[in-house]
Amino acid sequence: MKTAAPGLSALARRTPEPPISWLMKMTLDHPQLISLAAGFTDSESLPVREAHHLLQHMLRSAKTARSSLQYGSTQGDPVLRRLTAEHVQREDGSDAGRVYAPGRTLITHGSQQLLYLVTECLCDPGDIVLVEDPTYFVYLGIAQSHGLRCRGIPLTPDGLDLAALERTLESLKSRGELKRVKLLYLVSYFQNPSGVTTSFAKKQAALALLRRYERAAGHPIYLLEDAAYRELRFAGEDTKSALAEKRFGDRVIYAGTYSKPFASGVRVGFGLLPEPVFAAAVRVKGNHDFGTSNLLQQLLAAALASCRYKAHLPIMRARYAKKAAVMVRAIRQHFPAGVRWVEPRGGLYVWASLPAEVRSGVKSKLFRAALRDDVLYVPGELCYAEDPTRPRPDCDMRLSFGGATEADIRRGIARLGAVLHRWID
Amino acid sequence: MKTAAPGLSALARRTPEPPISWLMKMTLDHPQLISLAAGFTDSESLPVREAHHLLQHMLRSAKTARSSLQYGSTQGDPVLRRLTAEHVQREDGSDAGRVYAPGRTLITHGSQQLLYLVTECLCDPGDIVLVEDPTYFVYLGIAQSHGLRCRGIPLTPDGLDLAALERTLESLKSRGELKRVKLLYLVSYFQNPSGVTTSFAKKQAALALLRRYERAAGHPIYLLEDAAYRELRFAGEDTKSALAEKRFGDRVIYAGTYSKPFASGVRVGFGLLPEPVFAAAVRVKGNHDFGTSNLLQQLLAAALASCRYKAHLPIMRARYAKKAAVMVRAIRQHFPAGVRWVEPRGGLYVWASLPAEVRSGVKSKLFRAALRDDVLYVPGELCYAEDPTRPRPDCDMRLSFGGATEADIRRGIARLGAVLHRWID
Repeated sequence: MKTAAPGLSALARRTPEPPISWLMKMTLDHPQLISLAAGFTDSESLPVREAHHLLQHMLRSAKTARSSLQYGSTQGDPVLRRLTAEHVQREDGSDAGRVYAPGRTLITHGSQQLLYLVTECLCDPGDIVLVEDPTYFVYLGIAQSHGLRCRGIPLTPDGLDLAALERTLESLKSRGELKRVKLLYLVSYFQNPSGVTTSFAKKQAALALLRRYERAAGHPIYLLEDAAYRELRFAGEDTKSALAEKRFGDRVIYAGTYSKPFASGVRVGFGLLPEPVFAAAVRVKGNHDFGTSNLLQQLLAAALASCRYKAHLPIMRARYAKKAAVMVRAIRQHFPAGVRWVEPRGGLYVWASLPAEVRSGVKSKLFRAALRDDVLYVPGELCYAEDPTRPRPDCDMRLSFGGATEADIRRGIARLGAVLHRWID
Repeated sequence: MKTAAPGLSALARRTPEPPISWLMKMTLDHPQLISLAAGFTDSESLPVREAHHLLQHMLRSAKTARSSLQYGSTQGDPVLRRLTAEHVQREDGSDAGRVYAPGRTLITHGSQQLLYLVTECLCDPGDIVLVEDPTYFVYLGIAQSHGLRCRGIPLTPDGLDLAALERTLESLKSRGELKRVKLLYLVSYFQNPSGVTTSFAKKQAALALLRRYERAAGHPIYLLEDAAYRELRFAGEDTKSALAEKRFGDRVIYAGTYSKPFASGVRVGFGLLPEPVFAAAVRVKGNHDFGTSNLLQQLLAAALASCRYKAHLPIMRARYAKKAAVMVRAIRQHFPAGVRWVEPRGGLYVWASLPAEVRSGVKSKLFRAALRDDVLYVPGELCYAEDPTRPRPDCDMRLSFGGATEADIRRGIARLGAVLHRWID
């Protein structure tokens, strides 16, 4: 980061260039580069015909056209809010109507905006957020920008390590820091970057644990469940969200999105939030933009109401299943035996862990060698919070099969495999 | 404002419900109410056919469709950035290419988001922003939310009172507070709420004044020029923006929008920013939403490139000219002689000032009487900053001719006139 210009705010000074921009610039500087770094979605399965049809239909009638081209309300389009609440409740197969009320549903410009609003509304500089180890690096950027401290909770194959969560809470309690703990951020489905899905039982247990420490904290400790990849599932069954845990539903902030499953250029996400956080987030969103584009919202509402959204999901899922299989096959063929990784069941990523003595970070020889051989990955270190209670792991890589073509996935993994063989054999 | 829920951030606690939400709820509670309060744009002149045609064209080809449905970059679509920079430069008739570079153009979700980002990037709690007296009340909400202090600078018929600006800067300097002054926020065209346009000469003089105090401040003091209503001009000539002042172009942050002149449901705004602020705003926008919806951006780019945008402007302007004339005629007919107001030459508002002894505020008898008679205005007091150096004026009203039908404008002004006669005669 360059020396800050005079007069910038503390927030601006705390906000470095996000790693993803830097990685994307790499791509521009190396035209031959195959990027397995970008979290782009698949272009070929984008709902071109669906969007075309729906927009044409919307704009043909002056009445619906005018309403889509006019301002709406800050909370969002009432129809989309209802369809969204119903959509999540249906996914959860839950009869607990209260937490799935349209009245606590907020429509945002992507779920990213929801994460931002919630963090703004709950956290002051110096506050602590609990995150997974590893976690979504853009969320780490939001936390850093707001001057927050992070504590990383290790992941097991079915999600959070609950014993570690309890140890962390206990240690924060004993140091009198529980008052600063505001939320646990959980990317619960096919996590970015690890691919791990947190089981419903673990969500329940995590909620119960957080609740146990609330008295000492003096305020609610929320579970911010980021379900961005929930619908990008191509194997196995769906898992209930934390909203379905009836005892603690008022401690769950659920962030979802239509961007990834439908079209990332149509930036519509949403949140289901408990009352005090909902009210605050709406007030702050009023200052951000007083409401998500009505045109985008009504496009999504029409997609959901007409079942075109639902019909599009299997097409998109089949594409990602195929691309994931291509990446997995190439990894089996090209990576040395010492690399551990898990076959993804959804999402956009394979997370590969190298032997502990091999560094994969931005400044590592491996990363630079890969770049010289024209292949780019996201260094795992970027996905770990700065947490003074543990060293920052630096031997993983995030490999995305979302945006690259199948041929590029094959070639990219082959190139990366060749580089890895030089380091690991 | 209710007592804050425990655990909310200082920012959330400082963010009250925006007055506009409260006014809009009024409308829901009084179904017979004629609202001259909402800042909605005219529905009948929305570019229904244009949007229909452009979107159909974009989505017919798989290539352009896919690019509009995929993620873009945080800064914005390169074509739209170029067209936007050219558009503003053309309006300014300027040959000073540097400040109109696409590379310093940021596309946002409405110009509102740009105001938010700039404030986040420049201001810390306790900092001071200079605003017009009166000014855009949502900006006052942003300032309050960020814990900023405001100083109101009176307006004259051609904009800022420069002598008052100098007195304020001098007084801040003598109190050692210049270090906290970050920007002067100016709604420079057909101001919301007063309708005043600031002359180019005044912008130049204001920039020179700010520059004079920069040494004592220790950092740049920016002019944040909010040009949201620039294209909603239906009488007179255009005025150059502050960007055209070559000596101080690097101190100007220009916020513009396509929402109001084209379609408010297509939430696309933009900013032209000096380098350090641009870089910071892009980084922070990466955390907000990593970029404005590509579908919306490409729709605007197509509208600008095809001249459909340009062709739409006279239609929209003619509509507002007509509605403004309807309101002005009704005011002449129905308002008592003691009310002062100025015939608007653009924008969406008539600002009416009552005799000093009549209160128009939210808690005034007049406001409640108007509500009983089913007509709503924006109380002027909401448009004045909380400024400890002067009492908050409370005898104005903002009357909008943007969203209401012509019949409702006539009826609404007649009702309000009848109420006013009871107070003023």
